[in-house]
Amino acid sequence: MESRPILALNAYDPRESAALGGPLEAQLARRAAAFGAASVLFYDRPLEFLRGSGCTLIDAAGVEYLDAYNNVPSVGHCHPHVVQAVTRQLGLLNVHNRYLHPGTLDYAERLLATFPAPLSNLTLTCTGSESNDLALRLAATFTGRRGVIVTEAAYHGNTALVTEVSPTLVQQGAVAPIVRLVPAPRSMRQSARVAEEFAAHVTAAIADLERAGAGCSALLVDGIFSSDGIFAQPPGLLRGAVEAVHRAGGLYIADEVQCGFGRTGDALWGFQRHGVTPDVVTLGKPMGNGYPMGGVVARPELLEAFCARFGYFNTFGGSPVAAAAGNAVLDVLEGEGLMDNAARVGAQLRARLQELALRQPAVGDVRGAGLYVGVDLVDPTGAPAPALARAVMNGLRERRVLIGAAGKFGHVLKIRPPLCFSAAHAERLVAALDEVLSDLGAG
Amino acid sequence: MESRPILALNAYDPRESAALGGPLEAQLARRAAAFGAASVLFYDRPLEFLRGSGCTLIDAAGVEYLDAYNNVPSVGHCHPHVVQAVTRQLGLLNVHNRYLHPGTLDYAERLLATFPAPLSNLTLTCTGSESNDLALRLAATFTGRRGVIVTEAAYHGNTALVTEVSPTLVQQGAVAPIVRLVPAPRSMRQSARVAEEFAAHVTAAIADLERAGAGCSALLVDGIFSSDGIFAQPPGLLRGAVEAVHRAGGLYIADEVQCGFGRTGDALWGFQRHGVTPDVVTLGKPMGNGYPMGGVVARPELLEAFCARFGYFNTFGGSPVAAAAGNAVLDVLEGEGLMDNAARVGAQLRARLQELALRQPAVGDVRGAGLYVGVDLVDPTGAPAPALARAVMNGLRERRVLIGAAGKFGHVLKIRPPLCFSAAHAERLVAALDEVLSDLGAG
Repeated sequence: MESRPILALNAYDPRESAALGGPLEAQLARRAAAFGAASVLFYDRPLEFLRGSGCTLIDAAGVEYLDAYNNVPSVGHCHPHVVQAVTRQLGLLNVHNRYLHPGTLDYAERLLATFPAPLSNLTLTCTGSESNDLALRLAATFTGRRGVIVTEAAYHGNTALVTEVSPTLVQQGAVAPIVRLVPAPRSMRQSARVAEEFAAHVTAAIADLERAGAGCSALLVDGIFSSDGIFAQPPGLLRGAVEAVHRAGGLYIADEVQCGFGRTGDALWGFQRHGVTPDVVTLGKPMGNGYPMGGVVARPELLEAFCARFGYFNTFGGSPVAAAAGNAVLDVLEGEGLMDNAARVGAQLRARLQELALRQPAVGDVRGAGLYVGVDLVDPTGAPAPALARAVMNGLRERRVLIGAAGKFGHVLKIRPPLCFSAAHAERLVAALDEVLSDLGAG
Repeated sequence: MESRPILALNAYDPRESAALGGPLEAQLARRAAAFGAASVLFYDRPLEFLRGSGCTLIDAAGVEYLDAYNNVPSVGHCHPHVVQAVTRQLGLLNVHNRYLHPGTLDYAERLLATFPAPLSNLTLTCTGSESNDLALRLAATFTGRRGVIVTEAAYHGNTALVTEVSPTLVQQGAVAPIVRLVPAPRSMRQSARVAEEFAAHVTAAIADLERAGAGCSALLVDGIFSSDGIFAQPPGLLRGAVEAVHRAGGLYIADEVQCGFGRTGDALWGFQRHGVTPDVVTLGKPMGNGYPMGGVVARPELLEAFCARFGYFNTFGGSPVAAAAGNAVLDVLEGEGLMDNAARVGAQLRARLQELALRQPAVGDVRGAGLYVGVDLVDPTGAPAPALARAVMNGLRERRVLIGAAGKFGHVLKIRPPLCFSAAHAERLVAALDEVLSDLGAG
């Protein structure tokens, strides 16, 4: 089965979708004219939202949708505490980080206190892509090597360098010669030796990079293998792979853009679930609950080596407003116990989905950690069913429930709501999924 | 004379600066611990600001500084119309651009209407760096070539790819083999044939890239050569160079991150002053008056070629909040006539500085367009005087006036205030500069 570019998985395609008519069609035409080929919209019938609150998105007609997809507004859409903090700071000062500002410094110290000791320097950026771009350069400069190991269906961002290590983003052609792809640790029911297998793949990739003369600069993975199809179990599965990389003198870059800030329920950071210590950690999406910000947390000697050769300055990164947003997100995460909520509601959601699997044979596997959940959809032979995944995603959209799809074959339902997702939300999602699967005759 | 990395020009250096003592020293120690080697602060005695308004920045003791440096808060620090627009939208919805939103579409159309016809597609990013990274990839994919021509002291941003075309950012080692450096068009008093000379340099660089087998993918320049030392005269100076690139099948990427949005006074976009039409335009810094946003405006066929091979999605780019910020900035630019103000006050500022040059021999040349002004400082032999420029910048800081330094040799005072800079502000700046030069005995 061929893999599909990830950007096409969830997207409205004017060539595949029926004519929509009315004001929506006019708006789509305007959009295509303005944004051109790079315009990508979700769903066969794209959605327009005007308001958001908690886990709810509201369209122009006032119809409410349950958001089980968006991980950027991670403490809830338009959370008043974050809005207030950003608003207040916007009115006081919004300038770069080459002047001192107590808010930026306080935020940096507060954030760094959540990391293990060797990770004591923070560089603030604007996006996860900028963070991964810088992380790869830190690793290459420090190790003097260029080889990078990522998983087969990885997505780490959109810059030129980061696209090279994002095989899902390349629609034609091969990955760069310095990149080695390893299969994600597919912690399905049937696989018990997942950690050993993953370590063996990484060890082989290291040897291959060394033979090719590039050497191993870094293993770059996110702790939940999100675009590969969400593989989070068992805790500890990264240990052998990280040890192999360290033995070879390479670095382990933990991409926490998707799984950080409490989403996995067990710990603030995805890597902590696996009992490993990264050399570099990259942050993004939920960091400012939608205010554009990202970060790189690294061992000081990495930054020293890098800054001896290059400078790094980020105009918008670390502004007092970004710091206010980041601080407010941490306030809410702590104050509302959202990490515990992710653990509790995530466990309930997976339990309900596993019950659903007993009566809906198209549900092949239910996985995840906290509020990052993957559901394999399969055909009667057990093979991946990407067309069904797409139909289910669109069917749920018609029932006003928003999810996505992911994975090497596009057959994994991707569920990663704001962390204030409630038990009742989980029940509604599972009930709607049950109906959609029955309506599609997927059983 | 050796050129100096641009990041070091304006910076506090704990090895060079005297011990500062007191709470500032404690704060600097905390800052160094948290941000490590990448922490760069302005001035020998760094500043802490808590508030900003118009062209004024205010420190913790309530002392006001005249801001003649910051071009991000381009319509004025904390402009109430922009703050209000962002605040309102933050409370309604802040989500990615894969759902439809009328604000994002309206903004895209409004912005695109300011560009010449072939430039009809907009891709929204978060930073100027992301914009230049994408622009270079658009050019490489469309032309099938890799060679890029930039100026000797160019700075275009901080990603891995963009650093390759930013010679000022590389503190050791040479630029990448696909990059050719040309001298900036030094439109000093003594040089009349600046456009022809620049075209000749670019033509030679094209030939060299062709001989090397890389071919000419793009000429990437900003219309005011900001980090090279601010060369804006005469209007039209880019024409021959752009024609040469187009004849060779390459593209012209106009970096408007610094000179766009009315700063040059004559036109909204820097390239318009030169009567040329780019194939790609990149936007950043002032676009959201501090809200992190950037953009790439391109001919549709470039995006089509790119998206056939790669996808491009930017999580925070084109959110309704970014659109609200961008829209509000255009409102203020138009409503307050800031482009005209830039032309008028900029002309007055340059006239006053030219008067100053008559009595202060260290002022070697005064250049610029609108409110982007460069002042060469020279020694009695007429040679660049970077140490003097640094002393002047710090002397002005002690007189509560903020400017920077730039240029291949670091001897150019860089003056680019918010566009609401008034005639009185210009007088204050020139008077302070006069005093500082006299105090330093630079005459």
